[in-house]
Amino acid sequence: MSTFGLAAARVIVAAALDTAHAEDLKPMAVIVLDAGGHLIAAEREDGASNKRFEIAHAKAYGAISLGMGSRALMSRAEQQAYFISGAASAIGGALVAVPGGVLVLDDGAVVGVVGASGDTSDNDEKVVIAGIAAAGLTAQPD
Amino acid sequence: MSTFGLAAARVIVAAALDTAHAEDLKPMAVIVLDAGGHLIAAEREDGASNKRFEIAHAKAYGAISLGMGSRALMSRAEQQAYFISGAASAIGGALVAVPGGVLVLDDGAVVGVVGASGDTSDNDEKVVIAGIAAAGLTAQPD
Amino acid sequence: MSTFGLAAARVIVAAALDTAHAEDLKPMAVIVLDAGGHLIAAEREDGASNKRFEIAHAKAYGAISLGMGSRALMSRAEQQAYFISGAASAIGGALVAVPGGVLVLDDGAVVGVVGASGDTSDNDEKVVIAGIAAAGLTAQPD
Amino acid sequence: MSTFGLAAARVIVAAALDTAHAEDLKPMAVIVLDAGGHLIAAEREDGASNKRFEIAHAKAYGAISLGMGSRALMSRAEQQAYFISGAASAIGGALVAVPGGVLVLDDGAVVGVVGASGDTSDNDEKVVIAGIAAAGLTAQPD
Repeated sequence: MSTFGLAAARVIVAAALDTAHAEDLKPMAVIVLDAGGHLIAAEREDGASNKRFEIAHAKAYGAISLGMGSRALMSRAEQQAYFISGAASAIGGALVAVPGGVLVLDDGAVVGVVGASGDTSDNDEKVVIAGIAAAGLTAQPD
Repeated sequence: MSTFGLAAARVIVAAALDTAHAEDLKPMAVIVLDAGGHLIAAEREDGASNKRFEIAHAKAYGAISLGMGSRALMSRAEQQAYFISGAASAIGGALVAVPGGVLVLDDGAVVGVVGASGDTSDNDEKVVIAGIAAAGLTAQPD
Repeated sequence: MSTFGLAAARVIVAAALDTAHAEDLKPMAVIVLDAGGHLIAAEREDGASNKRFEIAHAKAYGAISLGMGSRALMSRAEQQAYFISGAASAIGGALVAVPGGVLVLDDGAVVGVVGASGDTSDNDEKVVIAGIAAAGLTAQPD
Repeated sequence: MSTFGLAAARVIVAAALDTAHAEDLKPMAVIVLDAGGHLIAAEREDGASNKRFEIAHAKAYGAISLGMGSRALMSRAEQQAYFISGAASAIGGALVAVPGGVLVLDDGAVVGVVGASGDTSDNDEKVVIAGIAAAGLTAQPD
């Protein structure tokens, strides 16, 4: 078992939201899942729309399910949209193939995943990467 | 719109987990939804089993969906199990009718709901009520 | 990360089926999931009915999702059927609350889960426990 | 009823994984279904991402459901994406229309299907075909 857990997840969420505020981004949802795809922590800021948690979750869940960041899933979707729609159904519906779902690595092993939604996909990914770095872990966005 | 939001949700989650620790309860998931049933914040402690977030969510989501605490839903289930199973299907499956899903009131108005899962249902409810009190709000467990 | 993986899962499946044959049980499905609830290995014997894999899976998946063997889930179902039906919906439908879903522990940590279906629930559980023992691991059926 | 069953499925899975290792492919999930679309055997190797079983299953299940290999489903998707997305919904979501889902024929009759996921779709298909050949059966990838 990795020691990746709630303590690291809190650092990631806080640092991701700090980064979003420093860059004056739109209200954001940030979510952290463990290596099995199960939620550790999530926050949705005031003013973020109703389902931003679900979108952030689906970026993260799709990424950890298929073993690549959601930016790589977007590349696949651009080439074979039918693969991504089929995969989404096969894994239970939670797969959004745009940037913002980033694998978390510790000593080269995938220990979890972080997702964000609220601003542009590129900005969502940026705050996630900042959050992961703040926890002293490695981000793999694609 | 109520001012109930992420600031209050953080106080609730932290106080709920502090209460669980003070009483030496099992690892816990705690979740806060707004009045529309949409997630504001959630944490699942290290050692809580995979789907404790989903169970805590289903207590809270069932409660806010039907406008009563999940203890009241349990009473209804004891009398009319077929009502609760039908209602669960009707609202999309997320309804667990045991204590631990507690409405949050501010000045008499429902502004959100809190759910917990990890220890006994009665203990789950106790930590949720403590969390809501710590935020200066009113808990309605049934 | 635990070292529990395909090598151990193969030992468990083979030993479970050997035990079923030695006791002249009905054709059986046996399934092994990792700690995150994801499939490692499964076999359904010739003559086992169409959906025995799904039943064995739902015993195992329910157990690992809630952190207790499916015998403990049965006890809960006998007391509060509405909890189990609600929990089944909340975790996505795969929860069968009868014996035969057994947690796998290594040095006290849950590293996976094994499920079986084909004969009586008690016999299904017996072959699973024999399989886990053959791999040198600890079975927790409730 | 065909004699196609667990004995042949074990040969297929083992030979498919041997082929993957000989070609130094990424960790792989391989799955065998009977003519009714019901699981006979499956293995997911250590290091394959969480949902590789589900993807491999959806290639195989889509193929046996529509009576053609998943390479033929990909051709259809390239021409009529709306047919494939509609068919996926209609059969319950488990249809991934890329190579790697291959029908198994014995004396000209379809007796089952094999799916794999882990490396490129072309490589996934190659290991499946090698597995089917090792069992003395005929592969129909499209």
